[in-house]
Amino acid sequence: MIPLDDRGLLLGDGLFETLLWVDGQIECLDAHLARLAAGCKTLGLPTPDLDEAARLCRAAPGEVGLESGRAAVRLTLTAGSGGRGLERPAAPAVRMMARAAPAAPISTPADLVLAKTRRNEGSPAARLKTLSYLDNVLARAEALAAGADEAVMLNNRGELACASAANLFWIAGDKLFTPALSCGVLNGIVRARVLAKAAALGVETGVVAADAQALEGAQAAFLTNSLIGVRPVARFEGRAFAPHDLVERLRAGL
Amino acid sequence: MIPLDDRGLLLGDGLFETLLWVDGQIECLDAHLARLAAGCKTLGLPTPDLDEAARLCRAAPGEVGLESGRAAVRLTLTAGSGGRGLERPAAPAVRMMARAAPAAPISTPADLVLAKTRRNEGSPAARLKTLSYLDNVLARAEALAAGADEAVMLNNRGELACASAANLFWIAGDKLFTPALSCGVLNGIVRARVLAKAAALGVETGVVAADAQALEGAQAAFLTNSLIGVRPVARFEGRAFAPHDLVERLRAGL
Repeated sequence: MIPLDDRGLLLGDGLFETLLWVDGQIECLDAHLARLAAGCKTLGLPTPDLDEAARLCRAAPGEVGLESGRAAVRLTLTAGSGGRGLERPAAPAVRMMARAAPAAPISTPADLVLAKTRRNEGSPAARLKTLSYLDNVLARAEALAAGADEAVMLNNRGELACASAANLFWIAGDKLFTPALSCGVLNGIVRARVLAKAAALGVETGVVAADAQALEGAQAAFLTNSLIGVRPVARFEGRAFAPHDLVERLRAGL
Repeated sequence: MIPLDDRGLLLGDGLFETLLWVDGQIECLDAHLARLAAGCKTLGLPTPDLDEAARLCRAAPGEVGLESGRAAVRLTLTAGSGGRGLERPAAPAVRMMARAAPAAPISTPADLVLAKTRRNEGSPAARLKTLSYLDNVLARAEALAAGADEAVMLNNRGELACASAANLFWIAGDKLFTPALSCGVLNGIVRARVLAKAAALGVETGVVAADAQALEGAQAAFLTNSLIGVRPVARFEGRAFAPHDLVERLRAGL
């Protein structure tokens, strides 16, 4: 339970991380904690106790009786309790909590549609996993209403940004592309690993501002996040993508 | 206290209203409840029990020992408890709560700066008071860091939208202007009353998309919300505005 004066609840003032736990180990824990700390700095929040954050994440699966298998751990950090209105207290005391839930791997490729709801490239929050995640909720709901399972979000300039809960990649002319962070994109941990892996494989990469036609005209596309790893895209707005060797090599190489 | 699986806390999935309570009466209660219900519809949430919402609002001041005077009542509605991830349960059960705090009237004019953080005109959430309010928190923090007390937010097209917690008006050529809702603007209850009052006074009004230069070149400007009513602007980015007869007439006429 959390108090009713918590600014995470009242104003979406806070951050979260979603971590993959497999058989007692959390994947890329240090990278998640580093991103959380960087996000706090961007938002003007004090640096959280990262040892405590790690302890909460490690303990969460056991608290719901999970001993082995695969789980998602959600670490939530709020700006803590505050008074009325938008202004934070002079010395905010952040609040952290973690919960785990079983998370089976997703074996099907993604069916994408283009969301009407846009990313706010004009806010630093669009490059963070914040508790103000309603635009993502709305984009996902659009996908489900259209019979798809994920939505591609453009920013207000009409540039490709990301899916509602994943980073976006596509392959064109044997080159690998992903939207630049300045398009309103989360600095995804798997995104960075995929870019590094592509470079190691000698594949040319482009971190770009591109419109939806770039995706429509691609040879292949895939999504990344900590839970799905690399997930191929089967369709975007009805256009089908065939399986692609590079997607499989990047997926296997993580 | 609120459970840790609440989607308002985890994802900013919900709405709020800020209502003015004076000596036992809530101002414009029906308008606030109608806006809350309309917001639920936009977000795809079930219509809340508005009788229960009214009861919560009326009871909140007494719960903190207020019997007379002036208070802000914050009514919070969340999408309720849910499982992991962005998708809502098939039948979400919304959760409502209300809290009151004393709120003295603000007698000083506003000192405004231009925020770097933008409004997301490409999301329906930008026209609602949602629990995903972090952009507003960031804009307000920018104002305080600059020694001002409120921030003017542009959208990503560079159009004037609003202040971090108020609607924005300006006067130019004896005409009254305010940004259109399509710029990413809350349909403010005092905003609507001011537009109606201006029309009743025979003042021409413009609901417009305009850039920051329109405000810089104005004869006068003011902010509106349910707590401040009409609050004159003293300065915007260092440019001073003199008191203006029309601002005073609109303020007195509410």
